[in-house]
Amino acid sequence: MSGNSFGLLYCVTSFGESHGPAYGGVVDGCPPGLALATTDIQRELDRRKPGTSRHVTQRRESDTIELLSGVYEGRTTGTAIGFLIRNEDARSKDYSAIAEKFRPGHADYTYLQKYGMRDARGGGRASARETVVRVAAGAIARKWLGERYGVRIHGCLAQLGRTPIPFQSWDAVDQNAFFAPNAGMVATLEKQMDALREAGDSCGARVNVVAKGVPVGWGEPVYGRLDADIAAAMMGINAVKGVEIGVGFGAIVQQGSEHGDEMSPQGFLSNNNGGVLGGISTGQDITVSIALKPTSSIRLPRRTIDRHGRATTIETTGRHDPCVGIRATPIAEAMLACVLMDHALRHRAQCADVTPPLAFPPGAQGSKR
Amino acid sequence: MSGNSFGLLYCVTSFGESHGPAYGGVVDGCPPGLALATTDIQRELDRRKPGTSRHVTQRRESDTIELLSGVYEGRTTGTAIGFLIRNEDARSKDYSAIAEKFRPGHADYTYLQKYGMRDARGGGRASARETVVRVAAGAIARKWLGERYGVRIHGCLAQLGRTPIPFQSWDAVDQNAFFAPNAGMVATLEKQMDALREAGDSCGARVNVVAKGVPVGWGEPVYGRLDADIAAAMMGINAVKGVEIGVGFGAIVQQGSEHGDEMSPQGFLSNNNGGVLGGISTGQDITVSIALKPTSSIRLPRRTIDRHGRATTIETTGRHDPCVGIRATPIAEAMLACVLMDHALRHRAQCADVTPPLAFPPGAQGSKR
Amino acid sequence: MSGNSFGLLYCVTSFGESHGPAYGGVVDGCPPGLALATTDIQRELDRRKPGTSRHVTQRRESDTIELLSGVYEGRTTGTAIGFLIRNEDARSKDYSAIAEKFRPGHADYTYLQKYGMRDARGGGRASARETVVRVAAGAIARKWLGERYGVRIHGCLAQLGRTPIPFQSWDAVDQNAFFAPNAGMVATLEKQMDALREAGDSCGARVNVVAKGVPVGWGEPVYGRLDADIAAAMMGINAVKGVEIGVGFGAIVQQGSEHGDEMSPQGFLSNNNGGVLGGISTGQDITVSIALKPTSSIRLPRRTIDRHGRATTIETTGRHDPCVGIRATPIAEAMLACVLMDHALRHRAQCADVTPPLAFPPGAQGSKR
Amino acid sequence: MSGNSFGLLYCVTSFGESHGPAYGGVVDGCPPGLALATTDIQRELDRRKPGTSRHVTQRRESDTIELLSGVYEGRTTGTAIGFLIRNEDARSKDYSAIAEKFRPGHADYTYLQKYGMRDARGGGRASARETVVRVAAGAIARKWLGERYGVRIHGCLAQLGRTPIPFQSWDAVDQNAFFAPNAGMVATLEKQMDALREAGDSCGARVNVVAKGVPVGWGEPVYGRLDADIAAAMMGINAVKGVEIGVGFGAIVQQGSEHGDEMSPQGFLSNNNGGVLGGISTGQDITVSIALKPTSSIRLPRRTIDRHGRATTIETTGRHDPCVGIRATPIAEAMLACVLMDHALRHRAQCADVTPPLAFPPGAQGSKR
Repeated sequence: MSGNSFGLLYCVTSFGESHGPAYGGVVDGCPPGLALATTDIQRELDRRKPGTSRHVTQRRESDTIELLSGVYEGRTTGTAIGFLIRNEDARSKDYSAIAEKFRPGHADYTYLQKYGMRDARGGGRASARETVVRVAAGAIARKWLGERYGVRIHGCLAQLGRTPIPFQSWDAVDQNAFFAPNAGMVATLEKQMDALREAGDSCGARVNVVAKGVPVGWGEPVYGRLDADIAAAMMGINAVKGVEIGVGFGAIVQQGSEHGDEMSPQGFLSNNNGGVLGGISTGQDITVSIALKPTSSIRLPRRTIDRHGRATTIETTGRHDPCVGIRATPIAEAMLACVLMDHALRHRAQCADVTPPLAFPPGAQGSKR
Repeated sequence: MSGNSFGLLYCVTSFGESHGPAYGGVVDGCPPGLALATTDIQRELDRRKPGTSRHVTQRRESDTIELLSGVYEGRTTGTAIGFLIRNEDARSKDYSAIAEKFRPGHADYTYLQKYGMRDARGGGRASARETVVRVAAGAIARKWLGERYGVRIHGCLAQLGRTPIPFQSWDAVDQNAFFAPNAGMVATLEKQMDALREAGDSCGARVNVVAKGVPVGWGEPVYGRLDADIAAAMMGINAVKGVEIGVGFGAIVQQGSEHGDEMSPQGFLSNNNGGVLGGISTGQDITVSIALKPTSSIRLPRRTIDRHGRATTIETTGRHDPCVGIRATPIAEAMLACVLMDHALRHRAQCADVTPPLAFPPGAQGSKR
Repeated sequence: MSGNSFGLLYCVTSFGESHGPAYGGVVDGCPPGLALATTDIQRELDRRKPGTSRHVTQRRESDTIELLSGVYEGRTTGTAIGFLIRNEDARSKDYSAIAEKFRPGHADYTYLQKYGMRDARGGGRASARETVVRVAAGAIARKWLGERYGVRIHGCLAQLGRTPIPFQSWDAVDQNAFFAPNAGMVATLEKQMDALREAGDSCGARVNVVAKGVPVGWGEPVYGRLDADIAAAMMGINAVKGVEIGVGFGAIVQQGSEHGDEMSPQGFLSNNNGGVLGGISTGQDITVSIALKPTSSIRLPRRTIDRHGRATTIETTGRHDPCVGIRATPIAEAMLACVLMDHALRHRAQCADVTPPLAFPPGAQGSKR
Repeated sequence: MSGNSFGLLYCVTSFGESHGPAYGGVVDGCPPGLALATTDIQRELDRRKPGTSRHVTQRRESDTIELLSGVYEGRTTGTAIGFLIRNEDARSKDYSAIAEKFRPGHADYTYLQKYGMRDARGGGRASARETVVRVAAGAIARKWLGERYGVRIHGCLAQLGRTPIPFQSWDAVDQNAFFAPNAGMVATLEKQMDALREAGDSCGARVNVVAKGVPVGWGEPVYGRLDADIAAAMMGINAVKGVEIGVGFGAIVQQGSEHGDEMSPQGFLSNNNGGVLGGISTGQDITVSIALKPTSSIRLPRRTIDRHGRATTIETTGRHDPCVGIRATPIAEAMLACVLMDHALRHRAQCADVTPPLAFPPGAQGSKR
């Protein structure tokens, strides 16, 4: 399996470049019989779509998905689900001026050195627009996880640059352009983004994702751990530089008497471990937090070199998200959904005959078997 | 590929339990012709070995490796390298009292619920003693990476609980029982550990790992990214709860004008990205930082339940590391070595015919091609 | 990796159904820099295309390929190559009468029982039309293998029903509608097919494939053998029931003194082994022979059951190849190309630093290193 | 996954050389709770063991297996099962005379050219003694398949050189040293082998394997087909040159009206397809036939070259099976068991929620769901 596929049993393969004719993907391994309409996927794509507010890239893409296979009379057949999303607003001329230079923080340099050539138009394969495929694959996973196991996945923007966003409710998330879980913060965030845009700069962000209702037992020791696969999926999102499960880096300063989640007949008494112990889900919420670096494409001039190695400067004037973290929320949710679905299938392959011996009362942390 | 193997081309398979007869592993995909003696591996195993100071578990294991295949007349043959490490000091009676209870923070509960049964002796397969296999596999990778590409991998303890350990030199690391890169800190760390041990508690830690001399171009977009695979490898180490590449979570509060690493004809001017851009190595140092949770096995009493779901308490009196992070340094180095070797092989499979067009002066950040 | 992908490093993923909107595929792992035009692929697709003579299905498909990614300015970029082939002449009404019955020899029954449902239109995913994706992927592999290593792949129809076709020349193959390597046989074959068609019956066939110029050393012991992967690739072609390498089943009646290919300073003296020893290519021609069963869709009435398990009969009147083996030649060539390319990449991943110690004179059997 | 592992979910990894200290393996993915004793495996190993009659190699190996992990209190735990089989009667001196020459029909030449070096002792990694690992892995698969699904796997010698062995009963197979399903043929076979041994020559063989009781629905279209994976597993056995499913090459001369297996409310009316349609099991017997080439190590002198490319001759006087096909029966059974178990797990991963709509009466061909 080469680098454009992921997942062992729920296997997603992706292709496409930012300024090529289309993105597309293949989802393999989906169980048969899932009711699946184009709208189920389109809904998630629309959440990720560019141009929805002035705070994200103004590239105009409808991101309309065409389902090409694997669904018959409204249900998945168990065969490969192929889909296509045409690029509609690729302006290659935007990039002509910078094809000769390496944009700091971008993959321009590494692609050229690895492959000896590169498609410089809009970042080519390295463009974050590729995440459209992940969101589509995640939408299918999410639907199946929800219907089959009652799993629900939520994500939100937890911090924008230096501004933490106190969590208020998941309901708030889809009510604003920032995926902020707190309506009261929106004005502040807008002001912050306007200032950044005016300055021609960009900022980083933190996104949190939670999966609720995951049964105990998903994930394989020792190398196929659920947390390890989540870490890979998250670090594999463009611009992500850090991943935490549960308390994450906060665990460094905890003592064992504080960190280790105690148990009672009513379930777990805390969730420092973020719903994973020994690489296996505990039945508690799976909590993940990721760090996204500031957008590398900024208007401010930066020192760089051209493809002949000569010193120069660069200003990036294309249409970019001043904070890539804003649109990362649906992407991180999708990646979590894909990993969970892969492990749901892997778990039942090996352990379909096992009934977990213990049960907690409904509603308790860890109650899900 | 099930959960006890990792790596696509440099593929490591592991087996063994804490109180079974032995651990062992198979390293598949190693190029032929590498000079390899048992001592090359034993040296790394000795660094990880328990019982080397009063600050780690007092279990007495020589961790002697027996090479069973894949090496002939002192050189690797290109076939699978099998090896065995017998358990010598397994005291199953230590665990008899706790076989019926779930230790908070441990995988006892999740293993039982996933598999319907568990080997409770010393944590069974979930024991951190499994990392002996990783260190052995990493020792081989490290040797090949060093001889073939000049790659050097260093790790150190960067923080012990609330005590940061300022970096002084890599040379200091192997001069003390903590893998601390700073001799002047050792007395402080010893005092801290003595207090913890006396209190019957444990603490978390941060470990940093760096790979120097990695050529530009390793890693595959989009899902087989070098950073994604590093994240999985690190999060897959027992007790790890967070992974950062480069500035990691620090990227949240940076602006694009600060974060994006500028370039000059002499190379990169900074390394916020930690040596990876677009999932591909830049030729700079690859910098990784991980958070380890405090040891879950502590003497202090904790609330839990027994296997029938009844409330009880537990005190863990076996031989444990009061801070698992201390011995994590050679393990993290080993995992980084394995991932890099896998990607070295993957890269040359696809790009053997590519000469990277650009070169920086020797010694510059990013000079390696 | 689920069932719609194959290949470890040259990885082909396929989707599409016979009467859905399109077939498509993703080729991942192709080295960068290969000159690749749509015509390079179209040429091979045209060889497989239906409707080229009265002896194959009269379905009218142009099989026009649209390249969607992975190629920039006429060269592969090293990223995933996505492509699409629209279905143009799907007549679902042809199948309405048989949607309720299981066609003997077809996958109708097994798909329904496996998935609990099926897309009955034209066989859905089980249609041999899926091989269009394999031929496209094989065309790319073939081009690379030819340019990089001088590998040439030939295939031909070796037997049609009871009629063996004596080999005359590879040049003859593309001069007739049967891929027969013997122009003098064409009239006989036409007569035979006309009779079959008139009778409403079908026949089996043998197809031979040869790869010339494969260097010594491709293939991995013990389970990733070149011959094992070829066997899987061939048996995975619709209707194939047998695979031979070298003398194949003829080896049963040979003695060791006859079978074992002797060697001389001028190279191998025979090729009973078909160019593979110990799972590794010898540098000789790789010779493969496959058996294809007669087309299952025939006009003659056959006993079967309907989806409620009741006895009935069926006559298949759609547009079908009276001998699927005829169009199998380009498919078998394509599969061999894909396997060889995968192993070329795998070999250089592990053994890029090895120079084979021995050389035979140019032109000798086994001369290629 | 490199070349010493096979299976996606029931994953077998193998190591060891003919004259190294030991063979060993790791079986990953076995469901928990299977009762498994060393004797369950030893029984199968004893069937494959050398030295059981004068007609096979006289090397004296007890092939005693040591289980190292994955089993606790007599049951599998769901973690990796590691095992070891020490070599006891390796006589490296036997091979000293031939280390410098390439034995015709052996992998000596290809290993040297691929890896630049080789372990010449007894064929090193290429020795058929490696199959001991497969038989051990197969024994576990077989037990699970039998207990969980009622699958029974039988194999027998169907032809020895030019002598076909008419099938009489499976019971006869383990009553003679040839795995012949016909007691009346044993004297003939013994005479034939004595003559061969005296002549210093060897012969080929055909082995048939059947799996009974496989439920309908195992196997994945399009590339993960059950028949394709069986073909790879069989062709990957040392000395195998051909694989057939069902009527195999006999399908070439059948017409569709004869080949396509008709159905009735009582089940399938024939089994030309060998229990697989569209890559998916039909519920009928899965029938496989393989061709094994004559042993390459013979006493008769043969022309070859030495490692410097100079002409020479070779006579192989070590302890060898005059017909490797004889001991291939338990190996082929084991490989079939491993493939079936892998697909059993893969099938229930994706289709655990599907109930096959149709059922045939018990005992009918295809009755198993």
